[in-house]
Amino acid sequence: MSDLFLRACRREPVERPPLWIMRQAGRYLPEYRAIRERVDFMTLCRTPELAAEVTLQPIARFGFDAAILFSDILVLAEPLGLEVDFRPGPVVATPLRSVEAIDRLEIKPPEASIPWVYEAARLVRHELDPRVPLIGFAAAPFTLAAYLIEGGGSRLFESAKRLLWAEPQAAHRLLQRLADLTVQHLTAQVRAGAQAVQLFDTWAGLLDRQLYTEFALRWTQYVVAGLAHLAVPRIYFALDAAHLLPDVRRCGAEVIGVDWRTALDVAAHELGANVALQGNLDPCALLAGPEATVRAAQSVLDRGRALPGHVFNLGHGILPTTPLSSVEALVELVHAERRPLAATLPA
Amino acid sequence: MSDLFLRACRREPVERPPLWIMRQAGRYLPEYRAIRERVDFMTLCRTPELAAEVTLQPIARFGFDAAILFSDILVLAEPLGLEVDFRPGPVVATPLRSVEAIDRLEIKPPEASIPWVYEAARLVRHELDPRVPLIGFAAAPFTLAAYLIEGGGSRLFESAKRLLWAEPQAAHRLLQRLADLTVQHLTAQVRAGAQAVQLFDTWAGLLDRQLYTEFALRWTQYVVAGLAHLAVPRIYFALDAAHLLPDVRRCGAEVIGVDWRTALDVAAHELGANVALQGNLDPCALLAGPEATVRAAQSVLDRGRALPGHVFNLGHGILPTTPLSSVEALVELVHAERRPLAATLPA
Repeated sequence: MSDLFLRACRREPVERPPLWIMRQAGRYLPEYRAIRERVDFMTLCRTPELAAEVTLQPIARFGFDAAILFSDILVLAEPLGLEVDFRPGPVVATPLRSVEAIDRLEIKPPEASIPWVYEAARLVRHELDPRVPLIGFAAAPFTLAAYLIEGGGSRLFESAKRLLWAEPQAAHRLLQRLADLTVQHLTAQVRAGAQAVQLFDTWAGLLDRQLYTEFALRWTQYVVAGLAHLAVPRIYFALDAAHLLPDVRRCGAEVIGVDWRTALDVAAHELGANVALQGNLDPCALLAGPEATVRAAQSVLDRGRALPGHVFNLGHGILPTTPLSSVEALVELVHAERRPLAATLPA
Repeated sequence: MSDLFLRACRREPVERPPLWIMRQAGRYLPEYRAIRERVDFMTLCRTPELAAEVTLQPIARFGFDAAILFSDILVLAEPLGLEVDFRPGPVVATPLRSVEAIDRLEIKPPEASIPWVYEAARLVRHELDPRVPLIGFAAAPFTLAAYLIEGGGSRLFESAKRLLWAEPQAAHRLLQRLADLTVQHLTAQVRAGAQAVQLFDTWAGLLDRQLYTEFALRWTQYVVAGLAHLAVPRIYFALDAAHLLPDVRRCGAEVIGVDWRTALDVAAHELGANVALQGNLDPCALLAGPEATVRAAQSVLDRGRALPGHVFNLGHGILPTTPLSSVEALVELVHAERRPLAATLPA
């Protein structure tokens, strides 16, 4: 527990890799489930005291090296004037299925529309150990657009992809507005106390390189550039992006998240020496118990050792059925790692 | 319409790439939907006359260069003594969630258990233009195991993957038995008239290279080798496998299917000159209409031109909402392609 996380993001020497876990404030924790028995998901997001409480739960239990604000990428539906329901996956009441629907959008300033997100960040920053950094987050523009057009989760996001081919100009108009909103949203999180930001591009992997560079990477670069003056580490995590890594390399972020499919050393070869990598233990390994977790995590540690910077994380969000004993074994292993400081000096 | 397909599979000279479409006998066709209004999916699979009729529908309408038997990868649940329901995705009544469940399996010979599959193949071969080859198919062992352990479709197949880490020996026992059954199933399809076979490894892409080579590739190689004496082209299609291509290269099949994510020339670089490639138009492009289809398909044709062998297909199954006009435009484009025969000679 320390500033290990920020140092690793900047590729500065660290004695061991920092550890946090995507969805670390979530359903695998009994103390989180206890709160969710009383309130639904959106109420939890909209109540700063509760959002702050669940943000802090995994830090208290496991001593992770960073906290991530409890929120959801679809809280931006509200400034967009769209209704989203969680059952438990997100469902958008009126998806953006036409050019008209896209051009009718009226976007409100997020600080007026969803002040509870930033209030939660302020509360967390106030209550959290000052040595533990807080991470803010948002969806990358393509992934946010994919949800809004499709109307919810989907295996192939075919309506969203159809729009890219059928109405590319309207898609870009939407993406630009979402990108501007995302810059505002992340800037407000940083002003409220977040010391790093992560962009989740969960559906980028459904695109080939041509569509990815035109519709996803371009607007990710726009958001990353729009945050530069804040001088906080920017993390970009595109899921299922093995085929996109040569393009992901150009996103501009200091840290690239890597999913479990691509070994860290292979990813580093594609992504170059100018970024730190975050990841990438398979979340399914934890389901098999502490021994399997340690075996799989040791391989991630070994492959991470030669990286210019390594933030240990899972390669995807932790699963709700994960045994706590697996997480305990993971924390013990990573916290016991020692790296000679010279070996982690940036090239 | 000809033996173009078999020649392209063998990397022999062809004047244009053959064209067929995964799920070409399916819900995007009004004549298929008309039959499905009368009978449910499993009845259709189990009634040879109807299965043969829908197999032939897309050949009659579009003149595709190969037919694929109408069936389902989960028809093998029956010789395994497991019940599967389609609602519409497959649901296994008693998933194989324990070592005991795996070791209790009693497997019947498929020719006695599901004779209707092979009877449908015989009918098709009897009724189909002799110049149009018939393709038989099955799931690759890992993908079949994934469904049987998980109990149905899933985003991450976490129960199946948990078993690989927690009970690797039991997983291998299951995979070996499924591989033997799959060899019998495909052999029977070939004896009934199929002139090529395709193995679908739809969930292989959820594995990293280590798990893939140990649990998926190994048993795919076993099946591919078990079919060698039949001397028919073997096609292996692993979905979402960009990170696995250096391993997929070793599967032993004559033809490798490539999904839409990886451009054919990039895939060819990873897969070498000893295989033909099948694919890989993004099925979502067809949703945007004939113009978008032709634009995207032209790019696939262009990238396929330098391959030692190219079977034109989509990079995933055709979507039920695909407009017929897009398919018509695709057929017209590919059928009009002319390649100098010298350029397609194997290296």
